[in-house]
Amino acid sequence: MAKKVLIVGGVAGGAGVAARLRRMDEDAQIIMFERGEYISFANCGLPYYISGVINERDKLLVQTKEAMAERFNVDIRVNSEVTRILRDSKEVEVASGDKTYRESYDYLVLSPGAAPVIPPIPGVDREGIYTLRNMADVDRIKDVVIEKKPEKVVVIGGGYVGVEMVENLKHLGADVTLVEAAKQVMGPLDIELARIVEKTLMNKGVKLILKDAVAEFTGQDNIQVVLNSGHRVEANMVLLAVGVKPETKLAREAGLAIGEKGGIRVDEYLRTSDPFIYAVGDAIEVKDIVNERFALIPLAGPANKQARVAADNIAGRKVKYQGTQGTAIVKIFDLTAAATGNNEKMLQAMGIPYLKSYTHSPSHAAYYPGAVPMVVKLLFAPEDGKLLGAQIVGKDGVDKRIDVLATAIRLGLTVYDLEELELAYAPPYSSAKDPVNMAGFTAANILRGDMQIVHWEELDNLPRDRYVLLDVRTDEEYAKGHVEDSVHIPVDSLRKRINELPRDKKIIIYCKIGLRGYIAYRILVQKGFDAYNISGGYDIYQAMQY
Amino acid sequence: MAKKVLIVGGVAGGAGVAARLRRMDEDAQIIMFERGEYISFANCGLPYYISGVINERDKLLVQTKEAMAERFNVDIRVNSEVTRILRDSKEVEVASGDKTYRESYDYLVLSPGAAPVIPPIPGVDREGIYTLRNMADVDRIKDVVIEKKPEKVVVIGGGYVGVEMVENLKHLGADVTLVEAAKQVMGPLDIELARIVEKTLMNKGVKLILKDAVAEFTGQDNIQVVLNSGHRVEANMVLLAVGVKPETKLAREAGLAIGEKGGIRVDEYLRTSDPFIYAVGDAIEVKDIVNERFALIPLAGPANKQARVAADNIAGRKVKYQGTQGTAIVKIFDLTAAATGNNEKMLQAMGIPYLKSYTHSPSHAAYYPGAVPMVVKLLFAPEDGKLLGAQIVGKDGVDKRIDVLATAIRLGLTVYDLEELELAYAPPYSSAKDPVNMAGFTAANILRGDMQIVHWEELDNLPRDRYVLLDVRTDEEYAKGHVEDSVHIPVDSLRKRINELPRDKKIIIYCKIGLRGYIAYRILVQKGFDAYNISGGYDIYQAMQY
Ligand SMILES: Cc1cc2nc3c(=O)[nH]c(=O)nc-3n(C[C@H](O)[C@H](O)[C@H](O)COP(=O)(O)OP(=O)(O)OC[C@H]3O[C@@H](n4cnc5c(N)ncnc54)[C@H](O)[C@@H]3O)c2cc1C
Ligand SMILES: Cc1cc2nc3c(=O)[nH]c(=O)nc-3n(C[C@H](O)[C@H](O)[C@H](O)COP(=O)(O)OP(=O)(O)OC[C@H]3O[C@@H](n4cnc5c(N)ncnc54)[C@H](O)[C@@H]3O)c2cc1C
Ligand SMILES: CC(C)(COP(=O)(O)OP(=O)(O)OC[C@H]1O[C@@H](n2cnc3c(N)ncnc32)[C@H](O)[C@@H]1OP(=O)(O)O)[C@@H](O)C(=O)NCCC(=O)NCCS
Ligand SMILES: CC(C)(COP(=O)(O)OP(=O)(O)OC[C@H]1O[C@@H](n2cnc3c(N)ncnc32)[C@H](O)[C@@H]1OP(=O)(O)O)[C@@H](O)C(=O)NCCC(=O)NCCS
Repeated sequence: MAKKVLIVGGVAGGAGVAARLRRMDEDAQIIMFERGEYISFANCGLPYYISGVINERDKLLVQTKEAMAERFNVDIRVNSEVTRILRDSKEVEVASGDKTYRESYDYLVLSPGAAPVIPPIPGVDREGIYTLRNMADVDRIKDVVIEKKPEKVVVIGGGYVGVEMVENLKHLGADVTLVEAAKQVMGPLDIELARIVEKTLMNKGVKLILKDAVAEFTGQDNIQVVLNSGHRVEANMVLLAVGVKPETKLAREAGLAIGEKGGIRVDEYLRTSDPFIYAVGDAIEVKDIVNERFALIPLAGPANKQARVAADNIAGRKVKYQGTQGTAIVKIFDLTAAATGNNEKMLQAMGIPYLKSYTHSPSHAAYYPGAVPMVVKLLFAPEDGKLLGAQIVGKDGVDKRIDVLATAIRLGLTVYDLEELELAYAPPYSSAKDPVNMAGFTAANILRGDMQIVHWEELDNLPRDRYVLLDVRTDEEYAKGHVEDSVHIPVDSLRKRINELPRDKKIIIYCKIGLRGYIAYRILVQKGFDAYNISGGYDIYQAMQY
Repeated sequence: MAKKVLIVGGVAGGAGVAARLRRMDEDAQIIMFERGEYISFANCGLPYYISGVINERDKLLVQTKEAMAERFNVDIRVNSEVTRILRDSKEVEVASGDKTYRESYDYLVLSPGAAPVIPPIPGVDREGIYTLRNMADVDRIKDVVIEKKPEKVVVIGGGYVGVEMVENLKHLGADVTLVEAAKQVMGPLDIELARIVEKTLMNKGVKLILKDAVAEFTGQDNIQVVLNSGHRVEANMVLLAVGVKPETKLAREAGLAIGEKGGIRVDEYLRTSDPFIYAVGDAIEVKDIVNERFALIPLAGPANKQARVAADNIAGRKVKYQGTQGTAIVKIFDLTAAATGNNEKMLQAMGIPYLKSYTHSPSHAAYYPGAVPMVVKLLFAPEDGKLLGAQIVGKDGVDKRIDVLATAIRLGLTVYDLEELELAYAPPYSSAKDPVNMAGFTAANILRGDMQIVHWEELDNLPRDRYVLLDVRTDEEYAKGHVEDSVHIPVDSLRKRINELPRDKKIIIYCKIGLRGYIAYRILVQKGFDAYNISGGYDIYQAMQY
C-alpha cells in the first residue's frame, strides 16, 4: 500500500520534503498543509523586496501551489493550519477557513519553522510595529513603505535580519536607527569583528545604539521608542528583529520531546520521539558539529538538507543528518561578514579550550586592481590544531574563504591542513598564498611554537613594567598613530638596533597586521629575547576602537 | 657553524626559500642568484601590465633586491647566472658580467623555473615574435605595444598565458588571432567546457583557429604566419605561448636525476638525487595527488608552498610536500574557467575509471539580481565516489566553487561529502543548496543508482531504433530548438501522457540542464520504464556545438 505522508509547513523544510519524497516514491500520497497563503517562498529575499532591490514580488515565489502540485503530484492545502496531532489514531486536525477536519497519516513531517520573538514590551502591539517572516509580513511592510514612505525607522535587533532590514530601509532613503540590547551587533561574530560591521553601519549613516533595550513604545501619531537608558527615538515605523523561536506548539501539545533549547528534539534520522513523526528546519534542535551539543540554528541551508534526509528516511532508506555548524553570511552595504563553526563567546561559555589568530589578506593579488583587505579570525584547538570556528569580515572574497573554511571544519581539518590547500590562483581571484593558506600558516606557526603571540586584551593582565611594547612599522605609519608608550624600531632596522632593547623584559611586538611583527619576532627570539607578537597587530587594536 | 645556503633563481620559489629560511634560521648565510635583473616579480601579472590594466610597472615588483636584502638579510646577486654545479666540492660557478667565480655551499636550492617553449619553426627567431616570462620580456613587449601599436597580433597557443594575452591585447584594441594546434583551447578543461571559452573568445571578436599549427613565419615587414593547412595570417606582432619546459640544464649537467616528464626529480622532502641539493617550483616534477604519478605542474601556488617546505627541511625540520593537484583558474574577458584535479583526458590516458556528471547552477539565489549560471563538471570514482577532478565555467562565483572542490579533492572527499557541506548562504552570495551541493547531490544520485545517466557522446553507440529521445522541456523551449527526432512531453504533463511512451525501448530523457530530466526519470523508472537522463541536458549539447 502506498504511504500516506502529511507535511506541516510548506516552505523550505516542508516543500523540500515533499519534492524529495515524491522523487523517491512516486506512489506515496503526499499532503502538504500551509497555514499561510503561499508555499515555497524565499524568506531570505524578503528584506530585499522591501527596498526594491528584488523588484518583482513574483520572484519571491520560488514555487507556486499550482506548479508544485503539477510537478510533484502533491496535494497542497494553503490557508490550512494543522491545529492538533492525534498520535494514537495517527491523525491531524486541520483548520481551514471555518472548516475543521481530520486527516490520517502513516508518517507526519513537521516543518513549522520559527516565529519572530515578540518581547513583552509595553506598547509592542501598537500599530506601526512589524516583524518580518513571511509573505503576509512583507506585503504589510511594503504597503507602508510605498504609501507612507516612513522617514524615521527604528530597527530593534542587530542580528542578520535586523542588519539586512537596516540596509534596505536606508536604501529607501529612510533615517534608520538600529537598537541592540547586547554590546555588539551580529551575534555570530566576536566583538572585535562586529565592531567593523558597526563602523560600516555608522559610516553609511545608520544611527547605532548598543547596550540599550526598549523599555516601552509610546507616543501618539509617531512611535516613541523609549529605551532603558531613558533615551527616546521617534519613528514612523518600527521593525522588531530580535530573533526567532521554534514553532513547537503542535509538538508540545502532542507530547513530543522538546529539547533544552526549546526546539523539537529529533534523533540523527530526524525522527521525533514518535517514530512516525519527523521534524526538520527552524523548529528543531540540531547537533552542533563543533561542540556536539544541541543548538537552535535556524538557517535555510540546513533546513533544505534536513528535508532531503527526512524524506529519504520516510522512503525507507536509513540516512543520518550529521549536524549543523552554523555557517552564516550577511551583506552589510558593501561589507560582507561571515562565520562558521563556533565563536569565542560560545567556546568560552562551553569551557572548550581554544587558541585564536588573526590575519589580514588582500582579496586577490595586491598588484591587480581592486584588491581590498579582509580580516580572518581562526579559532582552533590548542592540542591538535583542529579548527573550531572562523570569522571573516571584508569587502570582497569573504564568501569564498568562509566556504573553504566551512568545508575544512565540516571535515574536521586542522590548521595544518589549511597550509597545504591548493586553491585557485590567478591575479584577479587570489594570491599564490590564498588568505586561507595565510591563516593556516600563521595558526600553525603558533602551534608549532614558531611564533608566541599575545592578544591585545591580554596586555591588561601584564604589569606595565614587565614588558616593552615594540612598534616595528615604518616611521610614516608610526607618525600616523601608535599605541602610547611604545618603542619604535622599524623591522628593517631591527638587526642594527637590536641592542636598544632590554633583555630582562618581555618584548611585545606589533606591526600593522602581524606579519612584520612575526619577522621581528623571529629575529628577536633567535637572538635570545623573550618576544611575543601581537596577533592581528594594530589593525585589530583599531578595529576594537570606534 | 652557520649553514651556507645558495639559491638559484630569485622569484617565486627562490625568494620564497630565502624568506622562509631566514625566518627559521637567523644565522644562516643565504646567497640568492638571479640571472635576470629583478627578483620577486609577479610573473602572473605580466599580461595585465601589457594592457595597462596593471598601470604601474612597479606594482609587478613584489620585492626589490634592496628591500628584500634589508628585511631578510640575504645576499642577493642579480645579473648573476649559476652556470655549473660542482657537487664534489659543493660549489657553484657563477657568471656575472664578464666575471666568473665560484661560491661554496652547504645546501643548494634550485628554483630556476621553466622557459617558454620555442618550437623549431622556420622563421621563429625573426623580429616581432615574442615570448613572455619575465621582466625583460614584458619590457620588450610593452615597448612594442606603446611605440608600434600593433594592429594585427597573432597569439600562438591557447593555454592560460595565451588566452590572457589575447584578452589583454584585445583590450588594447588590436585585431587578435589565436592559433591553437590542438582541437581545443585551455588544456586543463575537457573539450565541451573549452567550447564555452572558445565561444566567449569569438564573441569578443577574437579570431580563433583550432587544429592548425604554424608551419612557418615568413613575410617582409609584417609577419606572415603560415599554418599547416596553408592558411596565412598577417601580423605586426606574434606572441608564442605554447607552454613551458623546466629549466634543467644545470641539474642535468650536474648529473642530478631527471624524471620522465623532463623535470628535476625530487623526493617528498623536495631533495634532488643529491642530498645537499633541493629543488622547487616549475623546474621539478611533482606527484599528482589524484593519479599519484609524476607530473609537471608549473604554477605559482605550488611553487610558493614548495619553497616553504624546502626551507624547513634545510633548517633541519622534516617536512613533506604532499603533492600537487593542478588547481588552476583563468579569466577570459567576463568569463572564468577553472579546474582542479584530473580531467577526463588525463584519466582516460592513464586508464583510471571514472564517472562524470554535469550540473548548471546560478551563481547566487536566482531571485536576487545578478545571478548568472555556471556549469560544474565533476569526475569521480565509480566504486566509492571519490572525487578525481572538477571543472567549472561561468561568469561569477566560479572561483569560490572551484576552491571548495579543490579542498574536497585535497582531502580525498567523495561526492557524498559534497552533499553535506554547509556553505554560506544569503541571497547575494549563494543558494540554500550551493552549486557544490547540487553537483554532489547529482553525482551521488548517479552512484546510488537513483538516476541512470547517459552522455550525449554515448548516444552515437546506441542503435537509433533502440531508444526514444524524450524532450521534457516546455513548449516554448522546444520550439526554440531541440534535438532532431525527439519526442516532446513537458515534464509537468508526463504523468498524464505516460502511455504515449513505448515500454520496449530505452527512454532517453533530456531537459535544459538535467534537473527536470531527473524528475521525469524518477517518474518513468518507478512506472517500469527503462529510462536514462542525459547529464547536463540540452545546455551541454549546445555547449559542444559552435
Ligand atoms: C527575513 C529573513 C531572512 C532570512 N535570510 C536567511 C539567509 O540569508 N540565509 C539563511 O540561511 N536563512 C535565512 N533565513 C532563514 C530561513 O528562511 C529559514 O531557516 C528557513 O526558511 C526555515 O525553513 P522551515 O521550513 O523550517 O521554516 P519556514 O520556511 O518558516 O516554513 C514554515 C512554514 O510552516 C508554516 N506553519 C507553521 N505552523 C503551521 C501549522 N501548524 N500548520 C500549517 N502550516 C504551518 C508557516 O506558515 C511557514 O510558512 C531568513 C529568514 C527570514 C525571515
Ligand atoms: C605570463 C605568466 C602568467 C602566469 N600566471 C600564473 C597564474 O595566473 N597562476 C599561477 O599559479 N601561475 C602563473 N604563472 C606561473 C608562475 O609564475 C610560476 O609557476 C612561478 O613563477 C614558478 O616559480 P619558480 O621559482 O619555479 O620560477 P620563476 O618564477 O620563473 O623563477 C625562476 C628564476 O630563476 C632564474 N634562473 C633560472 N636559471 C638560473 C640560473 N642558472 N642562475 C640564476 N638564475 C636563474 C630565472 O631568471 C627566473 O627569474 C604564470 C607565469 C607566466 C610567465
Ligand atoms: C524549491 C523547493 C520546493 C525544493 O525543490 P527541490 O526539487 O527539492 O529542489 P531543487 O529545485 O533545488 O532541485 C534539487 C534536486 O534536483 C537535482 N538536480 C539539480 N540539478 C540537477 C541536474 N543538472 N541534473 C540532475 N539532477 C539535478 C538535485 O539532485 C536535487 O534532487 P535530489 O534532492 O533528489 O537529489 C524548496 O527548496 C523550496 O520550497 N524552496 C524555497 C523556500 C526556501 O528554501 N526558503 C529558504 C531559502 S530563501
Ligand atoms: C614575497 C616573497 C619573497 C615571499 O616572501 P614571504 O615572506 O615568504 O611571503 P609573504 O610575504 O607572503 O608572507 C608569508 C609569511 O608571513 C606570515 N604571515 C602572514 N600574515 C601574518 C600575520 N598576520 N601574522 C603573522 N604572520 C603572518 C606567514 O605565516 C608566512 O610566514 P611563514 O612562511 O614563515 O609561515 C615571494 O613570495 C616572492 O618573491 N613572491 C613574488 C613572486 C611570485 O610569487 N611570483 C609568482 C606569483 S605572481
